Amino acid sequence: MKGFQFAGVSAGIKNNGLKDLGLVYATHPASAAALFTRNQVTAAPVQLGKKVVRGGKIQAILVNSGNANCFTGPQGMADAKRCTVLTADALKIDPGLVMVSSTGVIGAPLPMDKFKAGIPQVTQALDQDGIENFSKAILTTDTCNKIVTTSGEIDGSDFSVVGVAKGSGMIRPDMATMLAYVFTDVQISPELLKKALHHAGNRSFNRITVDGDTSTNDTLACLASGASDAVVAEGDGFIRFQKLLDKVCYDLAKMVVKDGEGATKLAAISVQGAATQEDAFKAAEAIAHSPLVKTAIYGEDPNWGRITAAAGRSGAMVDQDKMDLYFEEIPLVLNGKWLGPEAEKKTAALMKKEEIKIVLDLNLGQYHDQFLFCDFSENYVKINADYRS
Amino acid sequence: MKGFQFAGVSAGIKNNGLKDLGLVYATHPASAAALFTRNQVTAAPVQLGKKVVRGGKIQAILVNSGNANCFTGPQGMADAKRCTVLTADALKIDPGLVMVSSTGVIGAPLPMDKFKAGIPQVTQALDQDGIENFSKAILTTDTCNKIVTTSGEIDGSDFSVVGVAKGSGMIRPDMATMLAYVFTDVQISPELLKKALHHAGNRSFNRITVDGDTSTNDTLACLASGASDAVVAEGDGFIRFQKLLDKVCYDLAKMVVKDGEGATKLAAISVQGAATQEDAFKAAEAIAHSPLVKTAIYGEDPNWGRITAAAGRSGAMVDQDKMDLYFEEIPLVLNGKWLGPEAEKKTAALMKKEEIKIVLDLNLGQYHDQFLFCDFSENYVKINADYRS
Repeated sequence: MKGFQFAGVSAGIKNNGLKDLGLVYATHPASAAALFTRNQVTAAPVQLGKKVVRGGKIQAILVNSGNANCFTGPQGMADAKRCTVLTADALKIDPGLVMVSSTGVIGAPLPMDKFKAGIPQVTQALDQDGIENFSKAILTTDTCNKIVTTSGEIDGSDFSVVGVAKGSGMIRPDMATMLAYVFTDVQISPELLKKALHHAGNRSFNRITVDGDTSTNDTLACLASGASDAVVAEGDGFIRFQKLLDKVCYDLAKMVVKDGEGATKLAAISVQGAATQEDAFKAAEAIAHSPLVKTAIYGEDPNWGRITAAAGRSGAMVDQDKMDLYFEEIPLVLNGKWLGPEAEKKTAALMKKEEIKIVLDLNLGQYHDQFLFCDFSENYVKINADYRS
Repeated sequence: MKGFQFAGVSAGIKNNGLKDLGLVYATHPASAAALFTRNQVTAAPVQLGKKVVRGGKIQAILVNSGNANCFTGPQGMADAKRCTVLTADALKIDPGLVMVSSTGVIGAPLPMDKFKAGIPQVTQALDQDGIENFSKAILTTDTCNKIVTTSGEIDGSDFSVVGVAKGSGMIRPDMATMLAYVFTDVQISPELLKKALHHAGNRSFNRITVDGDTSTNDTLACLASGASDAVVAEGDGFIRFQKLLDKVCYDLAKMVVKDGEGATKLAAISVQGAATQEDAFKAAEAIAHSPLVKTAIYGEDPNWGRITAAAGRSGAMVDQDKMDLYFEEIPLVLNGKWLGPEAEKKTAALMKKEEIKIVLDLNLGQYHDQFLFCDFSENYVKINADYRS
């Protein structure tokens, strides 16, 4: 990736010796945009990050795993600022261009001695090909790296988009955090980048759920180095860039859900024919969050009653006599009527797959929306109940 | 209970030979009020019941378990009406005074031959002391009867209130249904009864959750026979009656949660100091529904981060630096600061109890609200995933 260097080292923040300190460095200040958690309870680095990104330019992102720096009061904010300064010093750049993120235990102060030693070390390790190390450093209970790479061209100039995420595997011993960073070498203004990132985020990270609990640390940031010759301006170039950015975010979001705690299946619920856009969102969200639907998917059961009932309580306008429900292309309910055991047998066979596609047509209008979610297994309960045992 | 007779028989609607048809008969038309599910997807008997109760008088309630008569189209409505007529004929009363309820499998037509044979049989079995039989007939996967009895007096006249409920144990093989019936011998107008029942329902059944999925069949009905000398009019008498009705509904609701699927603990979250009534409700509801909080309770973990974060995403106004969190009387967080390992040890000890009381004070105002809920265990997943295996 032109214009970026990456690193990930073990600084001793995690107790298990795994990589826990990641750094991204743009050789020149990059256009930047970011989305943060909507939770009103936010960690210090999120509060600080919101201010930094307002300037439109970021040159470095320091991310640690093992400690979320959340519910740490004024000390937490001071520590986050200190990390910013230490990073700026090591890189010899303006502290106003440094963003920090943290994920891990909440309520415990940042181990600042580890940062003092670790930040020069991770700076030394910066490498244009270091993205896998960076990816490893931000993981917590994730079971795999989450990196998506793609490229395109605008007016004959090639450009790349690379995304890295950590998932909502529960952090031992505390909260889930979703962190995602997307890097590109296009030339783009911070304003246009913000517009593109909002679009991409709404169609990806804002349409996924593992357990409905948003974190205090969720962050999606995008940096554009401008190191390629591809210039993104309104019009055809923007559309081309948006398409790739959407794809990178969607694929990353899908990886996050697929690696959800205890998840055995990835499901997509597409609600069509809603009377309003909000209705489509509400119905899809209610279905994706329903523990009854999620356990049914775990049990490979095309439980149409639970799906339609979740839509019924979602607040979206529904008419039970107009609902159609499909699993992939196979209808199980048409005009609110169950099609019988033969149709059920066919859809039950589809439920054995690892990726399940459900379509609910409300037949009340022309709006649609979609959520990606995962099933609920005994293992989800185990992971989230047993952390102290 | 003066003025009421009850029965419960096995009519063969369930496959396992257990009681599945219950009947309540008021010797004279009783003042009646009812609350129904807010789910827009509703079963035929709920649609019919809403009409019947509008008249303000009910003389009989027929309840079957084993079949929910939901998603059964025009045939389902015809069958529900037929059950009404069969019951009225057997009792020689006006069909306009008969309410029917169903709970069980959805999508399958009612086995009308079983009702034709069963209704005369259950009518024969009516008995003033038959409430336990009635209770058994409405249960599905509940592990115990849910009956609450209490009595009081108004102006020197004694009266009784008896409640019966079936819980949100998942119906094998389908949806959860909460049915609750309260009987009293006071003299009260349908209008006043409606007012009292709304008050009681809002403080009990509308403040509980097992898994957040409302059913298509949920019903809470109250019948007052007027067979005692206690007259309930606005003023002191109403307050006395309301207090007992509140208690019966609250105790029944508590029994329903305690018997929730896979539940090992009963928890109460009380949100205090909210800026508005709606904020108090939103924060309490979000905490009670959070899978992360529920699994933490199962794991006997006073996970304050998950509780405060759920409040943070609830839409209620919160200030993380003002939050106080208590387990019973023991504080774990004050002014948003964790009180350390000693406090955590003390609260962890409280989590070993079967009933857990959590208090979150937002310190932003004077409004409070409360939810009862249960934990999430591996067994919940098993019960809801494995029904076809």
